[in-house]
Amino acid sequence: MRSAAVVGTGLIGTSIALALRGRGVATYLIDRDPEAARNAAGLGAGLVAVPPAPADLAILAVPPQHVASALREHQLRDLAHDFTDVASVKVRPQEEAAELGCDLSRYVGGHPMAGRERSGPLAAQSDLFQGKPWVITPGAGARRQAVDRVTELAELCGARPVVMSHAQHDRAVALISHTPHMVASLVAARLLHGDESQLQLAGQGLRDATRIAAGDAELWTDILGSNATAVADVLEEIALDLREVVDALRDLGAGAAAPERQRTSRAHLTTALARGVQGHGRIPVRTPGGMRLSGVAAGK
Amino acid sequence: MRSAAVVGTGLIGTSIALALRGRGVATYLIDRDPEAARNAAGLGAGLVAVPPAPADLAILAVPPQHVASALREHQLRDLAHDFTDVASVKVRPQEEAAELGCDLSRYVGGHPMAGRERSGPLAAQSDLFQGKPWVITPGAGARRQAVDRVTELAELCGARPVVMSHAQHDRAVALISHTPHMVASLVAARLLHGDESQLQLAGQGLRDATRIAAGDAELWTDILGSNATAVADVLEEIALDLREVVDALRDLGAGAAAPERQRTSRAHLTTALARGVQGHGRIPVRTPGGMRLSGVAAGK
Repeated sequence: MRSAAVVGTGLIGTSIALALRGRGVATYLIDRDPEAARNAAGLGAGLVAVPPAPADLAILAVPPQHVASALREHQLRDLAHDFTDVASVKVRPQEEAAELGCDLSRYVGGHPMAGRERSGPLAAQSDLFQGKPWVITPGAGARRQAVDRVTELAELCGARPVVMSHAQHDRAVALISHTPHMVASLVAARLLHGDESQLQLAGQGLRDATRIAAGDAELWTDILGSNATAVADVLEEIALDLREVVDALRDLGAGAAAPERQRTSRAHLTTALARGVQGHGRIPVRTPGGMRLSGVAAGK
Repeated sequence: MRSAAVVGTGLIGTSIALALRGRGVATYLIDRDPEAARNAAGLGAGLVAVPPAPADLAILAVPPQHVASALREHQLRDLAHDFTDVASVKVRPQEEAAELGCDLSRYVGGHPMAGRERSGPLAAQSDLFQGKPWVITPGAGARRQAVDRVTELAELCGARPVVMSHAQHDRAVALISHTPHMVASLVAARLLHGDESQLQLAGQGLRDATRIAAGDAELWTDILGSNATAVADVLEEIALDLREVVDALRDLGAGAAAPERQRTSRAHLTTALARGVQGHGRIPVRTPGGMRLSGVAAGK
């Protein structure tokens, strides 16, 4: 890859541009907000300009619901030979791009699994993707060269390419990211019903458990709305589990339930908690160098 | 306070004994497991012995469901003039102590809001309670001296005494600790239904959000079971919120809903997420010195 056009110079777009510049790729920065593009350029992320000839790859670093229209627009103006995006959902942008008549042979979706709590170009880091998974979701009609370009992009950024279908990706992020975010938001929102004397007892454990809920509400509405069915499916399973836990707690709280029923309710609670311990243990622990360990192997 | 008896030399009991030793109080360590008591003594937490005369205060650092029986046993043997506990629920131990005929004038419940992911005496730290809230829940019949002793205990440990009723305390910890724990367990347990390719995409955000779910399942069954009604009340509110979010996502996912309904559903989602941001912002941020700031004032 010798040249790349980055459309959208927020946190992710600027971090990609910085990583590519570090590997000698000529980068061109495009943003509807001229100040965002200039800020990115000021960090050394590239030139605020349209490339003089089509770039090898265009990276559409725009919100999920704008991917298809940006693809259409920049394919029509021949911005690059091949195109990718970085959106955190994959099925709907692909469907929308098909509806808009985009050239799907030259588009391969991507999703680098990295982020920060801060947003915008000034939060960008060239090593943001180091050792992180970068999901690549080639459609049936994508040409080989487009897949290779996106794989090369991930590697140039120090990430680990992982190939999945659009639907596989969206189910995965519903489970490991979108659902946990929504549930953390509901737990955090309950705190608005607490009074000051209750809140003053809260500590670091609760802060950590609800930190993801601090993410921008508008951005997360777009993300969850774009992956609505997959997220709703997981949330409904959690709602069923929650119903059973509440029933068990009601038995234990009433104290009136028969001893046998109390035992069953206690056992149900212990099983639910033990499954939580096991599930937490399945989350991979990444070393700074990017090596992955299972929670158990890492002794956590 | 010149002498204290610590019954139960786990993480909390041993940390209290270490803090008291550091302030010159004579401490006596009692545990059904002789090795745990010896380990605590080996750290300099005190003597493995029953005090030669009644201690000024006995601290019952045993699980919630054993508080009342330990109080009964050690009041009968005249272990100390006054008694407290450190259990994370307060209503039920008080009720059970009344049923067992304990002397409630000489018992004042307590709950230091501190802990670690590790347990046992070897994880103990003399500064574990530094700057943390220590809830004190005097019953109607408690004598003044008992309240003063427990307040002095909290202060000797560097904690900040906070007086509440038993019921206020239990509702507060249901909101800020027990419910978040249970919900994090359900989210983590869902990961058992994911395959390896989905799990490999998970990262630090999910680890943080579910870390509290890694706590011991048996201990947490005791805690949640002892505060079952208050926890079930909050969980049911979350279940209602969850139902509304699922309905909104179904509207957005179907794509078939009328535009007006889509707008309403998006707005509902944004409101739920924004309330999560606000709720998270209410959690106090504690500086190492123990000063408290609101999340907003601390710039987090």
